[in-house]
Amino acid sequence: MLTLEEYQNIIKEKIDSQVFNDKPAELYDPIDYTLKLGGKRLRPTLTILACDIFDGNINEAINAALGLETFHNFTLLHDDIMDKAPIRRGKPTVYKKWDANRAILSGDTMMVLAYDYLLNSPKDLLFDLFKVFNKVGKEVCEGQQFDMNFETSSCVSIDDYLNMIKLKTAVLIGGSLHVGAIIARASEKKAKQIYSFGENIGMAFQLQDDLLDAFGDTSVFGKKTGGDIRTNKKTYLYLKALEISNEKDRERLKELYSISDEDNQEKVKEVLELFNKYDIDQLTRDLMEDYYGKAIVYLKQIQLSSSKEDLLIGLADTLMQRDS
Amino acid sequence: MLTLEEYQNIIKEKIDSQVFNDKPAELYDPIDYTLKLGGKRLRPTLTILACDIFDGNINEAINAALGLETFHNFTLLHDDIMDKAPIRRGKPTVYKKWDANRAILSGDTMMVLAYDYLLNSPKDLLFDLFKVFNKVGKEVCEGQQFDMNFETSSCVSIDDYLNMIKLKTAVLIGGSLHVGAIIARASEKKAKQIYSFGENIGMAFQLQDDLLDAFGDTSVFGKKTGGDIRTNKKTYLYLKALEISNEKDRERLKELYSISDEDNQEKVKEVLELFNKYDIDQLTRDLMEDYYGKAIVYLKQIQLSSSKEDLLIGLADTLMQRDS
Repeated sequence: MLTLEEYQNIIKEKIDSQVFNDKPAELYDPIDYTLKLGGKRLRPTLTILACDIFDGNINEAINAALGLETFHNFTLLHDDIMDKAPIRRGKPTVYKKWDANRAILSGDTMMVLAYDYLLNSPKDLLFDLFKVFNKVGKEVCEGQQFDMNFETSSCVSIDDYLNMIKLKTAVLIGGSLHVGAIIARASEKKAKQIYSFGENIGMAFQLQDDLLDAFGDTSVFGKKTGGDIRTNKKTYLYLKALEISNEKDRERLKELYSISDEDNQEKVKEVLELFNKYDIDQLTRDLMEDYYGKAIVYLKQIQLSSSKEDLLIGLADTLMQRDS
Repeated sequence: MLTLEEYQNIIKEKIDSQVFNDKPAELYDPIDYTLKLGGKRLRPTLTILACDIFDGNINEAINAALGLETFHNFTLLHDDIMDKAPIRRGKPTVYKKWDANRAILSGDTMMVLAYDYLLNSPKDLLFDLFKVFNKVGKEVCEGQQFDMNFETSSCVSIDDYLNMIKLKTAVLIGGSLHVGAIIARASEKKAKQIYSFGENIGMAFQLQDDLLDAFGDTSVFGKKTGGDIRTNKKTYLYLKALEISNEKDRERLKELYSISDEDNQEKVKEVLELFNKYDIDQLTRDLMEDYYGKAIVYLKQIQLSSSKEDLLIGLADTLMQRDS
């Protein structure tokens, strides 16, 4: 076994060595730009890590890992158009740097490239791999649509929200591990267990993200605090506050979440005060701990050696702290 | 063997029986709408036809055929956003009926569905099938980007144009036949020959489309004549006219193609007069015949029975007349 950082470095070197210079350049430049922007490379790292955990040959998992990273980046490219997001990883998004058409079409091409990477996996595993990949791909699209629906819906429940983040984020975290396990030829049972471990960690990871967006330290987190509040995003924090607050506070919260001015600092402050009044920070951490606990139950079921278990627990902890 | 219409009916019934009612409806409604809009279902028809030509089991090719139709419709959905096209097959495009975000995301989902259909092909053929599918998918994206590039480029050559329509249109016609041949377990040589037959017919088909756009009878063709001229699209007709006209006419043609008013009937008339002066209609038909001839050479190489050859020649003729 290697350390998390070593797995990450394998992926980083592999991605940096990829060349996207086919013609037309207008199509491939944004692909090269996007894939080399950096980031944690979490998903491909999970794939080779899972492959190694189950004593597979990492080299056989590299292409599938690149496929998952390429797929993930394709979704970001298209999400950024839909969300009109100007910045990603500190750099202009493709949609901003070029235009929406370039982002649509280079995203589409990245999706084909993702499938083409995956195709360079052991042939006898292709059916199982594509099955997982397609399921996750479909769910990620569904998650993004639910997310967009929620922007204009006035009756989003906590369950709706948790289902949305499961589809949009958690299944791909689980799927990345699942793919690695398949390539290592782990039993179907163990492959599903590590998927479930990943899905639950993915839920905790997204809740952590929501929490940091509201309360996080800007210098550590790297983006402006309160973004979700400014854009009236109905996260778990908001929905939980609505659920447990008294009528007066609930109405005030709804009122604050109807303000469309994103620069309204007073609004952010008042929402955070309401969140604090109802201990939303702690309640969110409690839910994260629930998911973390579920993840550990699945992890224990796999019955790995303690050093492998520790590696996965270390991974989960790293993800939940988010400052690695 | 069946008739072309019988193959088409098999596909039509199969598509009409598909149900796209997963959640969220906002994502799946546009998919159902698009796939059930109708059209000739050319590509999936080619797939089961090729499978039957090579004595394969049509039932094994149905899913791949649906995959190709779904992929084709995904490209239309995204192209319509990029081209700002309001109407497709006489109905509002997804982008117009809903909005660009819905068209982006339901298109993405259709691409995953396309791969998922294809996955239900015989397992031992998956590698070969996905290889063809990915190659075609990548090329179609490249073709669309070249097409967009040409809108703003002042130096498009005839070769550039022919390469663009090959990528954007012809490879998918060839690829649809190729996939059917693979499923019938035809030899690699024969599968490539029927691909090349299809690619060349695809070229003739697109040139026919360009010709009808300029000179066609509106009642037969179903869309307003001269659309390409109104939008200054640099088709073979325009590029050939530029190549062979005298300097005065060339300058005038360029001038006319800088007019952005799409309702300028005088412009259309004058361009058509210039096309007629240089016999562009006939020159385009000559090039179509070249491609048709090349297609027939590949067809003969396959050495099919005369009844099978006749069926494919009938198909080619139908496509080139475009009024079937």
